Amino acid sequence: MTSSDLYPVSRLAAVQEATAKAGLDALLLTPGPDLRYVSGYDAKPLERLTCLVVPASGEAYMMVPRLELPAAQASPASRLGLEFVAWDETDDPYAVAAARLGRVGKVGKVGLADRMWAMSSLRFREVLPEAEQVLAGSVLRELRMRKSPAETAALREAGQAIDSVHRQVPELLRAGRTEREVARDIAEAILASGHQTVDFVIVASGPNGASPHHDVSDRVIQAGEPVVVDIGGQLHNGYCSDSTRTYSVGEPPAEFAAYYEVLRQAQEAACAAVRPGVSCESIDAAAREIIAEAGYGEYFIHRTGHGIGIETHEEPYIVSGNGEPLEPGFAFSVEPGIYLPGRHGARIEDIVVCAESGGERMNDTPRELVIV
Amino acid sequence: MTSSDLYPVSRLAAVQEATAKAGLDALLLTPGPDLRYVSGYDAKPLERLTCLVVPASGEAYMMVPRLELPAAQASPASRLGLEFVAWDETDDPYAVAAARLGRVGKVGKVGLADRMWAMSSLRFREVLPEAEQVLAGSVLRELRMRKSPAETAALREAGQAIDSVHRQVPELLRAGRTEREVARDIAEAILASGHQTVDFVIVASGPNGASPHHDVSDRVIQAGEPVVVDIGGQLHNGYCSDSTRTYSVGEPPAEFAAYYEVLRQAQEAACAAVRPGVSCESIDAAAREIIAEAGYGEYFIHRTGHGIGIETHEEPYIVSGNGEPLEPGFAFSVEPGIYLPGRHGARIEDIVVCAESGGERMNDTPRELVIV
Repeated sequence: MTSSDLYPVSRLAAVQEATAKAGLDALLLTPGPDLRYVSGYDAKPLERLTCLVVPASGEAYMMVPRLELPAAQASPASRLGLEFVAWDETDDPYAVAAARLGRVGKVGKVGLADRMWAMSSLRFREVLPEAEQVLAGSVLRELRMRKSPAETAALREAGQAIDSVHRQVPELLRAGRTEREVARDIAEAILASGHQTVDFVIVASGPNGASPHHDVSDRVIQAGEPVVVDIGGQLHNGYCSDSTRTYSVGEPPAEFAAYYEVLRQAQEAACAAVRPGVSCESIDAAAREIIAEAGYGEYFIHRTGHGIGIETHEEPYIVSGNGEPLEPGFAFSVEPGIYLPGRHGARIEDIVVCAESGGERMNDTPRELVIV
Repeated sequence: MTSSDLYPVSRLAAVQEATAKAGLDALLLTPGPDLRYVSGYDAKPLERLTCLVVPASGEAYMMVPRLELPAAQASPASRLGLEFVAWDETDDPYAVAAARLGRVGKVGKVGLADRMWAMSSLRFREVLPEAEQVLAGSVLRELRMRKSPAETAALREAGQAIDSVHRQVPELLRAGRTEREVARDIAEAILASGHQTVDFVIVASGPNGASPHHDVSDRVIQAGEPVVVDIGGQLHNGYCSDSTRTYSVGEPPAEFAAYYEVLRQAQEAACAAVRPGVSCESIDAAAREIIAEAGYGEYFIHRTGHGIGIETHEEPYIVSGNGEPLEPGFAFSVEPGIYLPGRHGARIEDIVVCAESGGERMNDTPRELVIV
């Protein structure tokens, strides 16, 4: 896949149209996923302002510190035919951006990149005092949630890469090793598998497995312990992987084996429930009901999933209260868990893309408990 | 050094006092350097809100997603004796934070972490509609700029670590290798030297050296070429390194040798000019005048430096227009450069801490041109 497939030049016009339709006068996109999604430019987040200004009508332009101009020109953003407005060390790029925007007409409402730093959003408030600020996400979410075939292919590529790492985990997990030692090997394997970055490596053994966001520790893994391994990274093309499997180092406790099977069925049911028109919260409910019926409801302490794309966590969230209906192209994790405080825990996670015919999983390593 | 030296418990009271003095009712600190500075907690930036609320008077508290509670409790923030307000997946943590803040009294003005994401700052605007938002930096900069002896020691430790990497560069730089190959080796050496992260590795050979923020490329380094190597990372304790040296692979062109010597004198003069009471811009001028007098003024296209601490770039900026007088504890880079477009460039960078007696450099590898 090339940048042109994943970040098509036509996207800018689609974004302008959506911006106008939403009643916004412009989007202000500083470095982060929103900027990358629209332009393909993976700009560094710096105190010096880089900002793609996308007016609802008229020409888009990008404020760029002069030092970053070569990087911007070398990026996929150069395909868009927009003007790079380079600014010098003693210029005020916010004032320049606002003045140019004002030429087009009154600026009543602007959309800020969801991750725009306060140091920028407050400066934009000063130079555009009449403009109501809302999130660019209010416009971009509608586009970003619906993955194109190229994006789905990129998520599949990311899924295959992280699956190749999970296939190595049984060799790495041994009683007597620390979580940190195992995590270091996994991190190397993530990079070797084609990821550009290691975004997270959770190796949670025994009681640590009961804390869903435990990272790693110097705890020594013991025989007979379940270990939750939740790993992911970002490919060079920007798309992310995220997959969890739970392993057992030798035979696990009987009660663990019992609830693990409940969890497996819950995860399976949630994946099977994915199809267009079904609400996000119903996917959550599909997993939660099975876990609750088996008496473990109070031990499933987080939402069932999150959207994924060029961010590991993005919309849609698979959570109670989110009635948004799934559409083809929606991509998200399905990752129920059961956590017994002080004892152990388990989680199974796949990335699922909603297709016309139902959910397609981007991961395919075994979901049965792997005893190593 | 322990967390207690670098992130003293007493800091919270100092921050509260400064907040009150600045006329703010509270600081709202989401994950990033401001939160870490005040609490020692290096929280992950996530879509789920983590926020340390520091009222000008009364008890500080931290909003924490329940999943992150173990991480927050295990962090240095637990020493502060503040309440962790854990919130669940379907709660609105912004509303909870605002309601608690409102109990103390009217909230007229709040300071947002400089890197707070728009997705949070706009939500805080909704739940605290009467509160003027300013940057927490307006309060914290006064504290963060004045490094304590422990912080200076941490910057020295970071400087020594990156110096140990620069000492290995002559072995790694050879004609026939690509910039990327050299950079990969340097990145490994940065981690091996005790850094937790590699923040940047610039290896800019020949004409690439004329672009100050060039990263790396697949360009093959040629004999007789100058190579700018600008590298840095973050120690586990949070403090950052940043040092540039320019090398030549074999004898460089004569004109390069000539302007390199001008640059060396300019960097030396700027470092020598550091002392309490002297303005930031005068340090910039000290370097710039020497370069301009030698006829290279138009080729020195960036400010002379940036503050450094738990961010690579923070206040104070060593730039024309910044009349702020230096004080003991101010820490910043001194990194003039000369860049001849399409041909080559050079930069020399040390981190300097202002002491009562003058500037103290945190780096001490040779500044003369190293021919490898």
